[in-house]
Amino acid sequence: MTDTPLFERVTIVGIGLIGSSLARALKAGGLAGHVAAHDADAAALATAEELGVADSIHGDVVEAVADADLVVLAIPVGVYGAMAAVMGPHLKAGAIVTDVGSVKEEVIRAIKPALPAGTHLVPGHPVAGTEHSGPESGFAELFRDRWAILTPEKGTDTKAVERVSEMWRRVGSDVEIMDAAHHDRVLAITSHLPHLIAYTIVATAADLEGELQIERQGDDVVTTAEVIKYSAGGFRDFTRIAGSNPVMWRDVFLSNKDAVLEMLGRFSEDLTALQRAIRWDDGDQLEALFTRTRAIRRGVVEAGQAGRFQYTENGDDDGETDDDA
Amino acid sequence: MTDTPLFERVTIVGIGLIGSSLARALKAGGLAGHVAAHDADAAALATAEELGVADSIHGDVVEAVADADLVVLAIPVGVYGAMAAVMGPHLKAGAIVTDVGSVKEEVIRAIKPALPAGTHLVPGHPVAGTEHSGPESGFAELFRDRWAILTPEKGTDTKAVERVSEMWRRVGSDVEIMDAAHHDRVLAITSHLPHLIAYTIVATAADLEGELQIERQGDDVVTTAEVIKYSAGGFRDFTRIAGSNPVMWRDVFLSNKDAVLEMLGRFSEDLTALQRAIRWDDGDQLEALFTRTRAIRRGVVEAGQAGRFQYTENGDDDGETDDDA
Repeated sequence: MTDTPLFERVTIVGIGLIGSSLARALKAGGLAGHVAAHDADAAALATAEELGVADSIHGDVVEAVADADLVVLAIPVGVYGAMAAVMGPHLKAGAIVTDVGSVKEEVIRAIKPALPAGTHLVPGHPVAGTEHSGPESGFAELFRDRWAILTPEKGTDTKAVERVSEMWRRVGSDVEIMDAAHHDRVLAITSHLPHLIAYTIVATAADLEGELQIERQGDDVVTTAEVIKYSAGGFRDFTRIAGSNPVMWRDVFLSNKDAVLEMLGRFSEDLTALQRAIRWDDGDQLEALFTRTRAIRRGVVEAGQAGRFQYTENGDDDGETDDDA
Repeated sequence: MTDTPLFERVTIVGIGLIGSSLARALKAGGLAGHVAAHDADAAALATAEELGVADSIHGDVVEAVADADLVVLAIPVGVYGAMAAVMGPHLKAGAIVTDVGSVKEEVIRAIKPALPAGTHLVPGHPVAGTEHSGPESGFAELFRDRWAILTPEKGTDTKAVERVSEMWRRVGSDVEIMDAAHHDRVLAITSHLPHLIAYTIVATAADLEGELQIERQGDDVVTTAEVIKYSAGGFRDFTRIAGSNPVMWRDVFLSNKDAVLEMLGRFSEDLTALQRAIRWDDGDQLEALFTRTRAIRRGVVEAGQAGRFQYTENGDDDGETDDDA
C-alpha cells in the first residue's frame, strides 16, 4: 500500500475471472483510490460483493462509471458496442477507457464511435487467464510474469497509454505495444486456433458416446467414458483449454474471423499433409516434422512461458493455467 | 524391499523414459531379484549405468535376455519385429514377454511369430509418460495412479497375465484388460490424435518464421519468435505434447494407421463444421458446442486424470505430464 494510487477511481465493467483478478490486484497494490465494479449478472455481483473484490458494487453501469478516471471493460467482446453506447455519454472529461479483450481491431471499431471527445481509448489484452470463470475464480497474482499487450491507435494521448502501461507493470506484467491488426494475427495462432482445435477434438470425443458404428470396426464402440478414463494419454491437455468460457470464446472467433480462418486454413493444409504421410507410410516426413517441433518447445521453455501448474493431490491442476487468454 | 520378488530376473529392452522408469520402480519396490537392461544406443547405456538404473547393463541383447523370467520391450514399435527375431531363440522356457508400446494390434503381429512355444506374450501399455526422453528422464513414480492396459490374446496363460498385472499394480498403476483392437481405437482418440494435432499446429507456427505473405495482410508478418513469446494464450499446451519423442511417435502413427485415420477423419469433419460456423457468424452453434465440451472437462477432473503438474520457478513444468503415453 506504499504506492501512490495511479488512479483516483477505477471502474471494472464485468467482474468475472479477469475483471475480478484485476480488481483484486489493484486493491492489493494500492493502485486505485477506489475500485468500483459493475456486472450485468446479479449473481456475479452478489458474489463479488460477498468476496469484497471491489470497494463499491453497482448494478447500474452509469452509476459505476460516473467520475471514473479509468474504465476497464472485462466483458465478452460481443457486447462491447452496446456497453460503450450506454456508458459513453456519462464518462467524465479525460477519462481513459481500456479493456482486456482477446481481439483488438473489432474492439476498437465497436467502442470508439461511442466515446466522447476528450476521453482516451487504450485497448489492452493481458495474455493471462485460467479455464475457470466468474468472480470467485479470480486472484490478484494472475497477471504476474505475463504479457499485457496494448494496441492504441496512432495519435492516442501518450500520457494515457503510459498510465495504463504502468498499471499493468504494477500488477506484475510486462507491457508490449503493437498494432491492433498485428495483435489479432499473432493471437489467432497463439491462442484462438489452439482453443478452436481443442474445442473440436473434445467435441469429437463427446460424439463417440453415441452408437456410431463404422463398418470396419464391427461392433466395437469407443465411449466417451473411456476417453475420459484414459485421457492422460494427451487428450486431457485439450480438455483444459476446452473448459474455457463459451460466450467469451464465441465472441472471440466471430470478431477475429479473418485471422482465425486464415490460420485455420494453414493448419488444415498441414494436417492434410500429415494425414497423407500416414496413409502413404512416409515415416521420414513424420519424423522430420516431429523433430522440428521440438525446437519450438525448447523456445517456449526458455522463454519462461512453459506453464505454471501446481500439483494437487486429486490430480487437478490449480487453475493457474492461461487458457482463457 | 519387503515384497517377495515377483520375478527372479527382469530384462528391460530399451532404457529410455519408460524403460528406465520401470527399472527404477522395480528396484525401488523390490519386485525383481535382478534387473537387466539393454539398449542399442551406447550413450543411453552409459547413462543408465552411471545412474545405476539397473543391476546389469548389456550391449548385447542376447546376453541381456538370457535366463530372464520377464522381458519388457520399451523400444519404438517399428523395431519390435527385428528385436523379437533376434531375442526370440534365446528366451528360456516359460519366459513372459511384455511391452509398453502405445499400439497393440500391430505389436502382436510383429512379436508373436518370433516367440518360441512355451513362452507367453502379454502385450501392455502404461498410459503414462512425459515430454522428455532418455534414461535420465525416468523416475520410479511415473506409473503411480495411472492406467496400465494389457491386451493378451484369448488363450494366453492366465498366470502370466496375472503376474504382469501384479507388476503394474505394485508400481502403482490400475490394470485394465481389453482387446488389442479396442485399445488401439481408444488410444487413437485419447492420445494419438491429440499428438498429431499438437505436432501439426506447432509446425504451422514454425512455418510462420519465413516470409509468408498473404495479400490481405499487406506487409504484416507474424514470426515464430512472437508465437513463442505469447504462447501462454493456449499454444504452449500444444508445444508440451509436440516435444515428445519423434521416432516413437512416427512408429505409433504408422502402426495404428487405420484407427488414427478414422479418428482424424471425424475430427476434420467437426473442424470444418466449426470453420463454417465462424464464416457464417453462427454464434449459437459455437456457443452450444463450447458449452458441451465443458462437461467433458469436468469428467476428466472428476476422474482424477486432469494432470499432475508441478510449479517451478522458471515457469517450466516438472515433466510429470503424460504426453508420451
